[in-house]
Amino acid sequence: MRDKIDVLSVLAALTLEEKAGLLSGQGAWETAAVERLGIGSVTLTDGPHGVRKHDPDAEHFSFTASLPATCFPTAAALGSSWDVELLAEIGAALGDEARAAGVGVLLGPGVNIKRSPLCGRNFEYLSEDPVLTGRLGAALVRGVQSRGVGASVKHFAANNQETDRMRIDVRADERTLREIYLAAFERIVTEARPWTVMASYNKINGGYAGENRWLLTEVLREQWGFDGLVVSDWGAVSDPVAAVAAGLDLEMPTTNGASAGRLVQAVRDGRLDEAVLDRAVTRLLTLLDQVTGAPAPAAPVDVERHHALARRVAAESAVLLKNQDAILPLDPCAHMHVAVIGEFARTPRFQGAGSSQVTPSRVDNAWDALTAAAGEHLRMTFVPGFVLSGEQKEDLLDEAVRAAAAADVAVVFLGLPEGEESEGFDREHLDLPQVQLRLLEAVARANPNVVVVLANGGAVRVTTWERHARAILEGWLAGQAGGGAIADLLFGLANPCGRLAETVPLRLQDTPCHLDFPGSAGTVSYGERIYVGYRYYDAKDMPVGYPFGHGLSYTTFAYSDLDATVEGEGEDVVVRVRLTVANTGPVPGKEVVQVYLGDAESSVDRPVRELKAFAKVELAPGGSAPVEFALTARDLSFYSTVHGRWVLESGDFEVAVGASSRDLRLTATVAVTAPPLRHPLDWHSTVGDWLAHPDAGPRLREVLSAAEGSAVASDPAILRMVESLPLNRLVQMSQGHLDFSDLAEFVDSPAARQA
Amino acid sequence: MRDKIDVLSVLAALTLEEKAGLLSGQGAWETAAVERLGIGSVTLTDGPHGVRKHDPDAEHFSFTASLPATCFPTAAALGSSWDVELLAEIGAALGDEARAAGVGVLLGPGVNIKRSPLCGRNFEYLSEDPVLTGRLGAALVRGVQSRGVGASVKHFAANNQETDRMRIDVRADERTLREIYLAAFERIVTEARPWTVMASYNKINGGYAGENRWLLTEVLREQWGFDGLVVSDWGAVSDPVAAVAAGLDLEMPTTNGASAGRLVQAVRDGRLDEAVLDRAVTRLLTLLDQVTGAPAPAAPVDVERHHALARRVAAESAVLLKNQDAILPLDPCAHMHVAVIGEFARTPRFQGAGSSQVTPSRVDNAWDALTAAAGEHLRMTFVPGFVLSGEQKEDLLDEAVRAAAAADVAVVFLGLPEGEESEGFDREHLDLPQVQLRLLEAVARANPNVVVVLANGGAVRVTTWERHARAILEGWLAGQAGGGAIADLLFGLANPCGRLAETVPLRLQDTPCHLDFPGSAGTVSYGERIYVGYRYYDAKDMPVGYPFGHGLSYTTFAYSDLDATVEGEGEDVVVRVRLTVANTGPVPGKEVVQVYLGDAESSVDRPVRELKAFAKVELAPGGSAPVEFALTARDLSFYSTVHGRWVLESGDFEVAVGASSRDLRLTATVAVTAPPLRHPLDWHSTVGDWLAHPDAGPRLREVLSAAEGSAVASDPAILRMVESLPLNRLVQMSQGHLDFSDLAEFVDSPAARQA
Repeated sequence: MRDKIDVLSVLAALTLEEKAGLLSGQGAWETAAVERLGIGSVTLTDGPHGVRKHDPDAEHFSFTASLPATCFPTAAALGSSWDVELLAEIGAALGDEARAAGVGVLLGPGVNIKRSPLCGRNFEYLSEDPVLTGRLGAALVRGVQSRGVGASVKHFAANNQETDRMRIDVRADERTLREIYLAAFERIVTEARPWTVMASYNKINGGYAGENRWLLTEVLREQWGFDGLVVSDWGAVSDPVAAVAAGLDLEMPTTNGASAGRLVQAVRDGRLDEAVLDRAVTRLLTLLDQVTGAPAPAAPVDVERHHALARRVAAESAVLLKNQDAILPLDPCAHMHVAVIGEFARTPRFQGAGSSQVTPSRVDNAWDALTAAAGEHLRMTFVPGFVLSGEQKEDLLDEAVRAAAAADVAVVFLGLPEGEESEGFDREHLDLPQVQLRLLEAVARANPNVVVVLANGGAVRVTTWERHARAILEGWLAGQAGGGAIADLLFGLANPCGRLAETVPLRLQDTPCHLDFPGSAGTVSYGERIYVGYRYYDAKDMPVGYPFGHGLSYTTFAYSDLDATVEGEGEDVVVRVRLTVANTGPVPGKEVVQVYLGDAESSVDRPVRELKAFAKVELAPGGSAPVEFALTARDLSFYSTVHGRWVLESGDFEVAVGASSRDLRLTATVAVTAPPLRHPLDWHSTVGDWLAHPDAGPRLREVLSAAEGSAVASDPAILRMVESLPLNRLVQMSQGHLDFSDLAEFVDSPAARQA
Repeated sequence: MRDKIDVLSVLAALTLEEKAGLLSGQGAWETAAVERLGIGSVTLTDGPHGVRKHDPDAEHFSFTASLPATCFPTAAALGSSWDVELLAEIGAALGDEARAAGVGVLLGPGVNIKRSPLCGRNFEYLSEDPVLTGRLGAALVRGVQSRGVGASVKHFAANNQETDRMRIDVRADERTLREIYLAAFERIVTEARPWTVMASYNKINGGYAGENRWLLTEVLREQWGFDGLVVSDWGAVSDPVAAVAAGLDLEMPTTNGASAGRLVQAVRDGRLDEAVLDRAVTRLLTLLDQVTGAPAPAAPVDVERHHALARRVAAESAVLLKNQDAILPLDPCAHMHVAVIGEFARTPRFQGAGSSQVTPSRVDNAWDALTAAAGEHLRMTFVPGFVLSGEQKEDLLDEAVRAAAAADVAVVFLGLPEGEESEGFDREHLDLPQVQLRLLEAVARANPNVVVVLANGGAVRVTTWERHARAILEGWLAGQAGGGAIADLLFGLANPCGRLAETVPLRLQDTPCHLDFPGSAGTVSYGERIYVGYRYYDAKDMPVGYPFGHGLSYTTFAYSDLDATVEGEGEDVVVRVRLTVANTGPVPGKEVVQVYLGDAESSVDRPVRELKAFAKVELAPGGSAPVEFALTARDLSFYSTVHGRWVLESGDFEVAVGASSRDLRLTATVAVTAPPLRHPLDWHSTVGDWLAHPDAGPRLREVLSAAEGSAVASDPAILRMVESLPLNRLVQMSQGHLDFSDLAEFVDSPAARQA
C-alpha cells in the first residue's frame, strides 16, 4: 500500500507535452510513465475469459504468446448460466489472477448484443438480450473489481460484427441504441461502476465511436454518471484530437509520440482546450491511483481451485436442448457399452481465437473425464470419427459406425472447427461441417441411441440433423475444464441448468438482420431496429429451432401462485411479481425462472414481450420456494425519441413467467398509472392532436363548429381527413372562412409546447 | 387554338404581388388568373381512374359531388394487366373526357410503390415493383397527354401509407429511394415527360417532400431533366417560401392570399430571390400555354365506347389465382345450375374511396351480365349471402347454403367492404370479413364446386380459406364495367391474362415491413430497404400465398430457345434476351413473359432477382412467337451511394425468364464487362483495400516486408487483422518501425481519390 496520488499537484507539475504523452500508451499493454514525477504505468491485459498477459520472453506479438492462466468458459457459456452470483465468482477469480500477474485493468467483459449468430466474436458476448447481458456483465465487473483490478467494459458501442470492423458505419436510430445496444452498458456503468470503458472500433451514424461526444460524454458521463476512464480499443483512434475532445482519455497502444504531438499542436493552435487534456489526464491519474492503491493479494493464485471453479461453471452453463425418452443421464454404474465418438472428445475446442485467447494452465478432455468417472461395469470405446481439418476420412467414419453398432449408446462430440469462428471475421453460415453431419447420420443409422455434445461459440443450426439425436447437450466453448463438466453432466453428477441466452434459429434466412448483415459499402443498417433475437421471432410469429431461455433439466419444475401487484405510480411504480416454483421430479436441480413483460397498448410499437427479470433457483426433489421480483418504472418504459427520455405510459401490462420465452407458465395483467403523456404541440400537430388537448381542444371545436353546414361537419370522410391535417394546413385552407385568432394565441404559448 | 403565351413579356408585365399570387390556387381546383393581363386559369382535377370534376351546383365539397364520368378500373387492376398499350389507351380515353370537361391537368397516375399491403391507398397504385409501375405509369401519361391534357405524376415521393400521412417522416437511405421509391418516377419523367409532378404530403429524412430541394430540384430537374411544373398535393404546403425555394411551383388549393403574402414578404426581406419566383411563374405560364394551346377535341366523348373499353380493361386485369380441375370457364351453353352467391354480384364494389372517387356514367353488375350471357339451358340463381354492413344474417347464410346444395357450381362473390380501404387511413389486417368467410365455408360444405370472385383494392390473405375454393378469380376494384368483365371471364368469353403486380402473402407477419408499418411517433423507418415485395420473400426464401407475376390462363404456354447475348460493354452494354413462347393449350390466350435478373457476385447486397422487362404476347392455339428484350447497363446496375451514381460491375448475371417470379422456365448466365469499380482511397481505407490498389499495393507490400520477422509476416491471424486496419491506424501503431514516407505521397495524391 502506498500513498494516494495527489492528482491536482501532479497535474500542476506536468508539462503540456507530458500531459499529452500520458494520453497514449507506452508499448502495447502499458500506460505511459513519467519518471520525473514518479508516475508509474498501469498494465492493461486482454482477457474476459482468462488473463492474457503477454509473455515478455516472446520475440514478437502473437495471440498465443502469453503466460499460462486459467481459461474459464467463454462468455457464450457464461451467458447461458443465467447465474449472477456465479459471474461474480468468476470475476473475483479473474481479478485474483490479474492482480497476481501485476495487471491493473482486465480488458473485459464483452457485453455487445448478439445481433446476428454469424458474428465471429459472439463467443465473447453474453446474450441477445440487454437485461441478461447487463446483469451478468455487472456481476463480472463487481467480481473483478472486488480484487482491486479494474474492468474495461467493451466494446462501447454497437460493435456487433467483425466484417470491416475498424470502420463499419452502424446506422441505428436512437431508440434502438438506447433499448438494445446501450442498455447493458448503462446497467453495468450505473450498478457496477467499472473503472474503465473501452470505446469500440466502429462508426455510429457517421462518426467513429471513439470520437462521438454524444456517446462518450453526454450519454456515458452526463446521463449515466460514469466517472472512470475511457480507453480506446487497440488501434481504434483515427484522430486523437477529436477523440480526446469527445471524451476519450487513453489511446492504446503506443503511437510512439505521434498522437501526443498532435494533441500538443492542437492545444497550441487553440483547436483543443488544455482543460480538456487536464480532464483526461486527471482520469488517467485517478485510474493509476486506484490500481496502485489496491491492497496486495492475500494469497497466491490457487490454480487447482480455479480449475475446479472453471469445471463447475462449465457445468452450470451447458444447455440440454433435447432429451428424448430421458436418454440422459447415463448411469455410470450400469452394465452398458458407450461409444464415445468425435475428435472433440479427445481434443476439445474450449476457447475462441483472437485477443481473448488464453494459454491455459491445463486442459481436460471429455474422454479422460468420462473414463475416470465410469464405474467398473461401464465399457467405453473412443473413436475419433473425423479429423479437425475437415478432410473426409472414410476409415474413421467406418470405424465410428462399427463402434456405434456395437454399443448401447453413442455419444457424438460435434462442433465448429477453430478456423470457423474468431475475432476478426464473421461466419458465413450456421451449419456444422459436412463431414461431421455425415458422421452423425451414419452413426444414427447404426444405433438410434445417439447423444450429441456440441462445442461452438456461436449458435449452430440444428434443423437439418436433430432427428438423428435423442439428446443434444450444448456445451459452448467451455474453457479448460469443460471436458470434466461434460462428463459430470452426461453421468448425472451435475444436473443441466443452463438456458439459451440466444435463440437457435431454424435457418440463417430467418435471422432478424439477414438482409442487413454485415452490410456493404462501409455501412450496415440496423433496419430490424429493436427487434433483435426473440423480440423479432415473437413479433413475426415465426418458429425457431430452440427459443431464447430454453434448457432442460433431469428433473421437472412446476410454477404456481403467480401474484402481480402494483405499488405506487409514475416514476415510483413498482410491480411486485411473486410466485412459487417447485421441483416435481426425482433429483435436485436448478430452474431459471424468467419474467417477461408485454405492453400491448402503447403509443409506439413495442416487442410482444421482453425479459425483465430472472432468478436461478436450486431445489431439492419435492422442494418448493417462493420467488419474488420487483419491476421498476424503467422496466416498463420505452425510450421516446420525441421526449428524449424513458417514458412510462398508463395502461395494462402483461406479466408472463416461465421456463423460456416460449414456455410461459403463468400470466397476469397489471394496470399501471402514470401521468398522461403529453406530446409538445405546435402548428404542425394535426387537428386530431389538437382536438385531444384538454385546453385547446374545446377552443378548436368551437372554431370548427363555425363551419357548420360545411363539408367538415356534414361528411364523415372529410372530417376524418381534416383530423389528419396539420393545424397550419387547416388554417391555410380555410383562410377567410374560419377565425383562428383566439386559438392562435394558445398555439403560440409555452403551454402548448409542454411535453 | 389561340396565340402562344409570350411568357417573357407576361413575366415582365407582372407585379411582384401578381407573381406571388399565381403560385397558389384560386379556389379548390383552379390556378389563379390575372385578368389585367388576360392570363386565364388551368383546371386541375382528381382522377387517375376517371375524371372527377367537381359539380358546380353542389353546395359543399364532397368526394361524391362530382359530374358523371367513366369510372375505369383502379390502378390495382391496371397494374395487373401488365399491358403497356392498354394503359396508353385508357390514358387517351381519360384525356378525352378531361378535355371535354375543360380540365387542363388530370391528377394522376399514382405511382407509389406498394410497400405494405395494408396501405389504404394501394388501390390507387400499380405495383410493388418499380419497373412494372414505371412502364405502365409512363404509358398512362403518354395516353393522357396525347389528348392535350397534362398528367400529374403523384405522389412524389415515398408516400406509401395513409397513417399520419400529412407529416409522417419517412426514414429511408438513398439507395432504397433511388432503386425502389424514385425509380418509377424517374422512368416516367424521362420517357413520358409529364407536364406536372405532384409533391407529396410526407416528410423524407426529416423535411417535407414539398420543401426538399434535393428531391424537387437536384434529382427531378437537374438529374432527370424534368421541365414541367411541380404542384403540391392539396394542402401539402407547410411553408410556402421554403417550398418555392426548394422547387415547388404551385401550391394548391387556394390560401386566399396568405401564401402569396408570405412570398412577397420573403422577397422584400431578401430571404427569397425574386428570380426564384420568376422561375416558378414561368413554369406556370408554360403549363397554361400547353393547356390553352391544345387543339379542341375532335369529337364529343363516346360514353358507350369508354364503357366498353372499361369492360375490356377489367377483363385484361383480372388474375386467375387458382383453377383446380379446370372448373373454369363455365360453359354458358351447358345444362347446368349455377348458384351466384354474394351481395357483391348485385352491388359491385368497383372503385376506392377518397379523391379518386368518380361518379360513374353507369354501373354493370355481374349478376345482370351473367344472366345476359347465359344460354337457355343454364339455370342461375342469385342469393345475397351477406349484407355489406358486415352484420351476421343467419337467414341469408341458410338461403345461400340451400342454393349451393341445389346447384352444380356455386360462384361466390367476396371482397373488402368499402369502409375497410380508402384514402386517408390504412387497413389493419389482410383478412376478408368474418361473415364472408363463414358463408364461404358453409357453401363449400354444401357443394365442393366453388368458384370465388374477389373484389378488393389491396391484397387479401387467402391462406385461411382457399381450400374451400376450386377456383379464385381476383377481380380487384374493376371500375364501372367490371361486372360484365367478370361474366366474360367466368364464361370463357375472355381468357384471364392478368398477373399479380404484388405478392399475396401468407400472413401479415410475413410482410417485409411488418415491424415498421405504419411507424410511430411521427416516423417510419424503411428498415427493409430495397427488399420490398418479392425482393424480400425471395431473399428470405419464404413461402407466399401467390407470388408476384402469378396468374393462370384457360390455355397453357411453353417457353423455349432462350438465348442471351451481350453486346458492347460498360455503359453501352446491351444484353439481348431472345426466346420463343408457344400456346400449347386449346384456346387463344395471352402470356406475360417476365424477365428477371440476378447478380450473385456484387460489391453490395442485391436482391436474388428483379423484374427488368416483360411483354404480353397474344397467341392462337398451337401458335408461337419470338420475344425479344434488350437490357441496358442501367438494368444491370445498382445505385452506389459511395459513388453517387448507378454502377455497373463486371461479372456474371443470371437471366431468368418465366411466367411468374417463382415460375422461372428458362435461365441463362451472361458475362458482362465494365471498367473496374474504383473506390476512392484515403488514410481511412484499410490495408487490404490499399494492397488491392494496382499502383499503391506494391508500394505498401514493400513497406510491410520491412517488418520481416515481425508478427505481421509470421502469424496469419495477425496478418488477417492487419488487412482490416485502416491505413492511418497501421501508420500510428507502427510509428518508428515502418517507413511510410514513400507511400504517404501517393495516399495524398489526387490519383488515390479517383473513383
